[in-house]
Amino acid sequence: MKGFFKVQTPDQLYKKMDRFKPLSSEKINIEDSLHRVLSEDIISPINLPEFPRSTVDGFALKAKDTFGVSEKNPAILRMVGEIPMGQVSDIEVKEGEAVKVATGGMIPKGADAVEMVEFTEWVDSHTLHAFKTLSPLENMIQVGEDVKAGEVVLHQGHWIRPQDIGLMAGIGKTDVHIHLRPRVGIISSGDEIVSIETVPKLGEIRDINRYTILSMVKEAGGIPLFLGIVKDRFNDLKERIELGLRESDMVVITGGSSVGSLDLTEEVLQIFPGTEILGHGVSIRPGKPTLLADIHGKPFLGLPGHPVSAMVIFHFFGKPILKILSGLSREIIWHQIKLRAKASRNIPSVPGREDYVRVKLEEREGTLWAHPIFGKSGAISNLVKANGLIRIGINEEGLEEGEEAEVILI
Amino acid sequence: MKGFFKVQTPDQLYKKMDRFKPLSSEKINIEDSLHRVLSEDIISPINLPEFPRSTVDGFALKAKDTFGVSEKNPAILRMVGEIPMGQVSDIEVKEGEAVKVATGGMIPKGADAVEMVEFTEWVDSHTLHAFKTLSPLENMIQVGEDVKAGEVVLHQGHWIRPQDIGLMAGIGKTDVHIHLRPRVGIISSGDEIVSIETVPKLGEIRDINRYTILSMVKEAGGIPLFLGIVKDRFNDLKERIELGLRESDMVVITGGSSVGSLDLTEEVLQIFPGTEILGHGVSIRPGKPTLLADIHGKPFLGLPGHPVSAMVIFHFFGKPILKILSGLSREIIWHQIKLRAKASRNIPSVPGREDYVRVKLEEREGTLWAHPIFGKSGAISNLVKANGLIRIGINEEGLEEGEEAEVILI
Repeated sequence: MKGFFKVQTPDQLYKKMDRFKPLSSEKINIEDSLHRVLSEDIISPINLPEFPRSTVDGFALKAKDTFGVSEKNPAILRMVGEIPMGQVSDIEVKEGEAVKVATGGMIPKGADAVEMVEFTEWVDSHTLHAFKTLSPLENMIQVGEDVKAGEVVLHQGHWIRPQDIGLMAGIGKTDVHIHLRPRVGIISSGDEIVSIETVPKLGEIRDINRYTILSMVKEAGGIPLFLGIVKDRFNDLKERIELGLRESDMVVITGGSSVGSLDLTEEVLQIFPGTEILGHGVSIRPGKPTLLADIHGKPFLGLPGHPVSAMVIFHFFGKPILKILSGLSREIIWHQIKLRAKASRNIPSVPGREDYVRVKLEEREGTLWAHPIFGKSGAISNLVKANGLIRIGINEEGLEEGEEAEVILI
Repeated sequence: MKGFFKVQTPDQLYKKMDRFKPLSSEKINIEDSLHRVLSEDIISPINLPEFPRSTVDGFALKAKDTFGVSEKNPAILRMVGEIPMGQVSDIEVKEGEAVKVATGGMIPKGADAVEMVEFTEWVDSHTLHAFKTLSPLENMIQVGEDVKAGEVVLHQGHWIRPQDIGLMAGIGKTDVHIHLRPRVGIISSGDEIVSIETVPKLGEIRDINRYTILSMVKEAGGIPLFLGIVKDRFNDLKERIELGLRESDMVVITGGSSVGSLDLTEEVLQIFPGTEILGHGVSIRPGKPTLLADIHGKPFLGLPGHPVSAMVIFHFFGKPILKILSGLSREIIWHQIKLRAKASRNIPSVPGREDYVRVKLEEREGTLWAHPIFGKSGAISNLVKANGLIRIGINEEGLEEGEEAEVILI
């Protein structure tokens, strides 16, 4: 009987992914670098701030002039000027003097603290009362306090967020080296699969997987490339996989029938030089018939044909591979923050494989509850009703009502 | 003294956002609809599946033939054929007969269950033993069990995920009506702000906010449009805001100095017909000096000049407005799942405003811990070190070590 393969645990497959390498890099404007991955360390050429700045609206002065002051016994200060934003001033603040500054404005020479406007009162147009004692350096930020010249502010392998682009802007880094986005060739296989524009004949079904996998590739930062629907024939498969290997950095195929077609795929892969089958079969539900191979350095992932299984398996195996190719640091890939939720009722499972049950997550008074959506694994509508998957461990028989487990947002 | 305004709570400002309306819609291919918002209800024209399908690899038969069977006392079945994937068959299964089917394959007439291949054994090439009792409809999915013809499968205002595109593919929906993406005009103001290509003179600083706000607009699904750096002069501001109102659906300005510049901005807004100031000042830290206006139906948001404050305020006020314009259902906008974390040490705060403290989130054995990153609010490097903000409520004096509170991922 065909199609019996050695099933591996997810962790065994994850370990084998370490062999894949990040793609090369390109240089782009920081404005376009959002959600890309750094291929260089970013070192600041300057101090930030470059001059001492106020963090409040108020009056720059010598802190010691405010020692021991109070509402009843204020400091009396002589106003000697104002520093307009963006301008330098050669005013020097002396004992008993103050200079008006706005938030972000430069602190003049001689001053070492800023009294907030809320704690001051004008006596006349040249004289100010200050009511609050300040420690030296209060309400100001010193040269290099934010970033020091020569400091590594962002590391290679970092996934770029808005604040990271902000920091690069602040240090005058206009262009940045990032890893190329992985191109992912997607093949739909199966004799029963037809294009969605077609009205399926009895026994045929529309190609759902093309659209779900293509969207998940986009979400994971890849560039999807659809290579068409292919029948379960050796030569058709071979030709299409060859095209995928030529045009993309990773090839994903969804199988029409769960056992047979991935066996045929495995036979086809063997004819490409440098093919190593890393796994065929994984102890995860839904999605047992999974095929992972390394074709001369390029990852190849075979997914089950069931739309729900294909999505779950792509989430667990396709996304991490894509992130490795994208250059994301391994630490970030394997140590993402995990959400946890409580089962709102008993959820049964069969030990021996990790089980991912579709759930509707709902927050009530700070607790996240997972309501299971039971249904046959072929039902795509259940995935639409769900917004999460709850994990039942490989040795567990299910979750009891109120029991907490890891969830994945979908 | 200028710059004293009536501070509102975040909730007071949120209520006022209800006046803004979703943008009009366009028709696109479902392949391009990821993360867009539906402007129509999607009704299925067909049943899914359109024919009864097997959910396993096995043998279609009459369930009653398996009643009471066991390993020692199997059902003896006559193999009468196989249904290839994607094909119709006029085989009719009679009592004592079985037909080979693959996962997803069509169930032949007469059969009402499928025995999994694991529970069968060939006796000879035409005879099969089946060991497991089946209930009627076991291991198969009936016509319309996933989706019924005429059913609303997705509602207007829904944010489109991969599985939603999959469902639309499955029912043959190739094009879909979605709301236009909001164009957001971004202005940086402040006499001290210079373009990042420039080497700042003493007292000047590079325009960080342009890059952070632009990136956050992209993350929220908008199309950013940078309108330049403008000095704090009435006419310069007026001209640039006019340009923004003409070219975009929403205008965002970041202020150079915290109090003065937004006052000037408010004066400028008053000259546009149909301007209504909805708020000036919000009890949130960092970010008190916030300006929200409705200019003849278009939202205008004035943010503080401090990069950290500008990001926090854009997160809380800019993003929800963008989502309203994008057409997202109000229910989804205001009821997002919130993460919670425990403070890893005492975090002090001042009552009277919501305080968002930058934290580094870390998971340890299923608990999410928030380590505060203390630092001056002007320090952009602290936002880079952080991956979250922890919320301290308006009436709270801080969080104690181990206390749980809401967190936002950044």
